[in-house]
Amino acid sequence: MENFVFSNPTTIIFGKGTIGQAGREAGKYSNKILLVYGEKHIRKSGIRDLVAASLAEAGVEFLELSGVKPNPGLEHVYKGISLCRENGIDFILAVGGGSAIDTAKAIGVGAGHPEDVWMFFEGIARPKKTVPVGVVLTMPGTGSESSSSCVITNERAQIKRSINYSLIKPVFAIMDPELTFSLPAYHTACGVADAMSHAMERYFTAVPDVDCTDRLCEALIKSLIRNGPIAIEKPGDYAARAEIMLASKFAHDNTVGVGRVGDFGTHKFGHQLSAVYGLAHGASITAVFPSWMRYVYKRDVNRFAQYAVNVWNVDFTPSDPEGMALEGIRRTAEFYRRIGMPANLREAAIPDDRFEDMVDRIFSITGETVGNYMKLNREDCLNVLRLAYDTDL
Amino acid sequence: MENFVFSNPTTIIFGKGTIGQAGREAGKYSNKILLVYGEKHIRKSGIRDLVAASLAEAGVEFLELSGVKPNPGLEHVYKGISLCRENGIDFILAVGGGSAIDTAKAIGVGAGHPEDVWMFFEGIARPKKTVPVGVVLTMPGTGSESSSSCVITNERAQIKRSINYSLIKPVFAIMDPELTFSLPAYHTACGVADAMSHAMERYFTAVPDVDCTDRLCEALIKSLIRNGPIAIEKPGDYAARAEIMLASKFAHDNTVGVGRVGDFGTHKFGHQLSAVYGLAHGASITAVFPSWMRYVYKRDVNRFAQYAVNVWNVDFTPSDPEGMALEGIRRTAEFYRRIGMPANLREAAIPDDRFEDMVDRIFSITGETVGNYMKLNREDCLNVLRLAYDTDL
Repeated sequence: MENFVFSNPTTIIFGKGTIGQAGREAGKYSNKILLVYGEKHIRKSGIRDLVAASLAEAGVEFLELSGVKPNPGLEHVYKGISLCRENGIDFILAVGGGSAIDTAKAIGVGAGHPEDVWMFFEGIARPKKTVPVGVVLTMPGTGSESSSSCVITNERAQIKRSINYSLIKPVFAIMDPELTFSLPAYHTACGVADAMSHAMERYFTAVPDVDCTDRLCEALIKSLIRNGPIAIEKPGDYAARAEIMLASKFAHDNTVGVGRVGDFGTHKFGHQLSAVYGLAHGASITAVFPSWMRYVYKRDVNRFAQYAVNVWNVDFTPSDPEGMALEGIRRTAEFYRRIGMPANLREAAIPDDRFEDMVDRIFSITGETVGNYMKLNREDCLNVLRLAYDTDL
Repeated sequence: MENFVFSNPTTIIFGKGTIGQAGREAGKYSNKILLVYGEKHIRKSGIRDLVAASLAEAGVEFLELSGVKPNPGLEHVYKGISLCRENGIDFILAVGGGSAIDTAKAIGVGAGHPEDVWMFFEGIARPKKTVPVGVVLTMPGTGSESSSSCVITNERAQIKRSINYSLIKPVFAIMDPELTFSLPAYHTACGVADAMSHAMERYFTAVPDVDCTDRLCEALIKSLIRNGPIAIEKPGDYAARAEIMLASKFAHDNTVGVGRVGDFGTHKFGHQLSAVYGLAHGASITAVFPSWMRYVYKRDVNRFAQYAVNVWNVDFTPSDPEGMALEGIRRTAEFYRRIGMPANLREAAIPDDRFEDMVDRIFSITGETVGNYMKLNREDCLNVLRLAYDTDL
C-alpha cells in the first residue's frame, strides 16, 4: 500500500424525496445562484420545475444555463463563466449527471480566476479557488457528484481533457434514486459501465499489498453487476436504482482507491473516442476495456485471475491462472453486451482509419506513456485499438 | 435502503513516516495545544518524543495530559477540560487509540461549553461546538480517528456511555502503520475484533435492499480476518498492519453503514462489562457476539447464511440456511479464539452473578429495548448473557 491523503467532505443527502431539500441546501451558500442543466430530459421529466420550486421556497434566486450536452463542451463553460461574472453569482447548482456537474465545476474554476479556464485543463496553471458547486444528481455513473475530477471537451480542437483537484469537489450532492426512474436503458447502462470502470481502473494496479481496497473494489463491481440489469429491466425498481447510485458514488470518490495507483489508461482512450466520434462516455470505455485487459493481463496474471474468481465467480483453478484471467475478461465483455454496451470498437461503430490520430491526441495530453498498471507506449496503444477492432471478444 | 446524510471530512494522512507531519498539521489550527495520551506505551515506544519533536519543529507549544487508561474515565476528562480553560487551549492532539481519542473528544466538547460534560453523555444536553481534535493513531480498531462517536466511563457510577455527533469528528488523523509494530498481540487482537464488530454491527440490519453496503461490510470483515492473524504472528509486517489500520477506519466512519440501521446491541453489553469488570473493549465484544448471534439468527436466517457463505466461505447449501448460519457463527467464535480473544463470558473470566445488574445498567441508558436488528427486552438480554455463559460455542 502506498502513502496517501484522503478526505471526502461532500455532504451526501440520499434518498426518496430529497430533491425538495435543494433550495435549503443551496440557500446555505447564496441567495442568487446559477442553475446548470441539460435541456430535454431535465425539463421533460419535471425535475427542473421541482428544483425551481424548492429554490423559490427557500428564497433563492437563480439564473439558468441549460442545454448542456453529453461530453460537455468548453463553449458552454465560457457562457457560464460570463453569466457568473456579469451577475455576481457565487454558487452554482448542477442538475443532471456528469455533463452538467463537470460543466458547473469548470464554470466554478473559470469564474474564480481571471485566466482563460482552458489553461487549467492544459496544465499550464493550477486553480487556487472556485465558486462552490452543489449537485442534484439525475444520472449516476460518473461519480462526479463527490469526485475531484472534471472532464471538458474543447470542441474546436476536438480534444477532451480533465482536471483533478480536491477544491472542485461539490459541497453537497442530493441523490434521489427516484429521479433516475425516467432514465432510458441506454443511459442507465452507460452509467453502470462507467461506475464499474472507475472501480476497475483502480483495481488494476501495480501497487502490491492492497488487500482491503481490492475487496472494496470487488464489492462495488459486484453490486453494479447485480443491480444494473435489474434497473434496465425494471426502470422503477427503487432498490436497484439506489444501489447503482450509491455504488457509483463510492466507485469514484476514491474510497476504494486509497493507497493504490489506478490505471486509467482506458479512460484516456475513451475520452478521445468521445471527443472525435461523440460516443457516450460509458460506451467509449466498454468498447476498449476488454481489449485493454487482453493486451495487459500477462503483466500480473494473478491479479486478473483474482478478478475473475472474486468478481465473476469463475471456478478457482490454481493450475491455470491464465485460463481464469481470460474467462474473467470474457465475462466482462459478455456483461457489457448484456446491458446493451459495445464490447469492442466495431460494436461501437468506430472505424479503424484514425487510430494514429487517436493515439496522437492521447499522447498530446499524457506525455511518455499511458496508464500505470502497465505503461503503454505509442505502439502499445495502437495495438490496443487494433485489438479492440479485430477482437473475437 | 433508508434515506441518509453522509459526509466524512476528517483528513486522513496515511503511511510510513507520516508521524513527522503532526506538528505541521496541528499548527494549522493553533500554536498552543493540549497533547492527550496514555502513559506507558506511548512513552516507552518513543512515539511521544517523535510527536513532541514534530510539534517543536513547527513552533507549536503544548501542554500534556498523559495517563489515559483503557475504558477512559470521566475524571481524566475533567482534568483536560480544566487544562484547556486555564491555558486558553483551542486545539487538542490525541496520541494513541480509542481511549486517548475519546478522552480528547470529550475534553473538546466539555471545554466548548459551560455545562458539566457528563450532561451530554446523559443526553440531557446536545453539544453545539467543540474544541477541534487531531489524532496520531497508534492503535487501530475503534475507528474513533474519523468517527462521530465517543465513549467515556463514569467511574463513580460504574457506567459507560457514548455520544454520537458529527461535530466531534477529528479534523485530521495521522495513520502511520509502523507506529503499531510495537503493539502486543493482545492489543492487536482487541483492535481487529473491535473493527470487525463495527462492520458486523452494521451488517446485521433489519433494513432490506442493502446490497452494495452488504458487499462493502463483507469486504472489510474479510480483510480483517486475513490480516489480523498475520499481524499477530509478525508484528512488523507493514502490509498487514496497514490493511488493519485502513479497514478499521472504514469499518466505523460509516462508509459501509449508509442507508442501513446497524444493531449495536452487542456494544451495549460490552460497554457495561467493561465498566464493571474492566474488560478490554475488544474482548468485551467477542465474549458476547457469538451468543448474541445464536440468540437472534432466526429472525433473518438468510442474512446469517449470507454472512456465513460470503465472509467465512461456508459451503452454499440452499436447502439448509440454518446449517449455514450456525456454521458461520461457529467460525466466528473459532476465529476469535484463534487470535486470542474470548468467545464467551467464561473465557473472559466474567462471573454469572451480576447479570441482572448488567441488564439494569444497559436499560438505564437505552430505554425500552436493546438493538435494532432484533429489539431485545430485559428477558432477552438476560438470555443472551446466560447463553454467553453456558454456551458450547
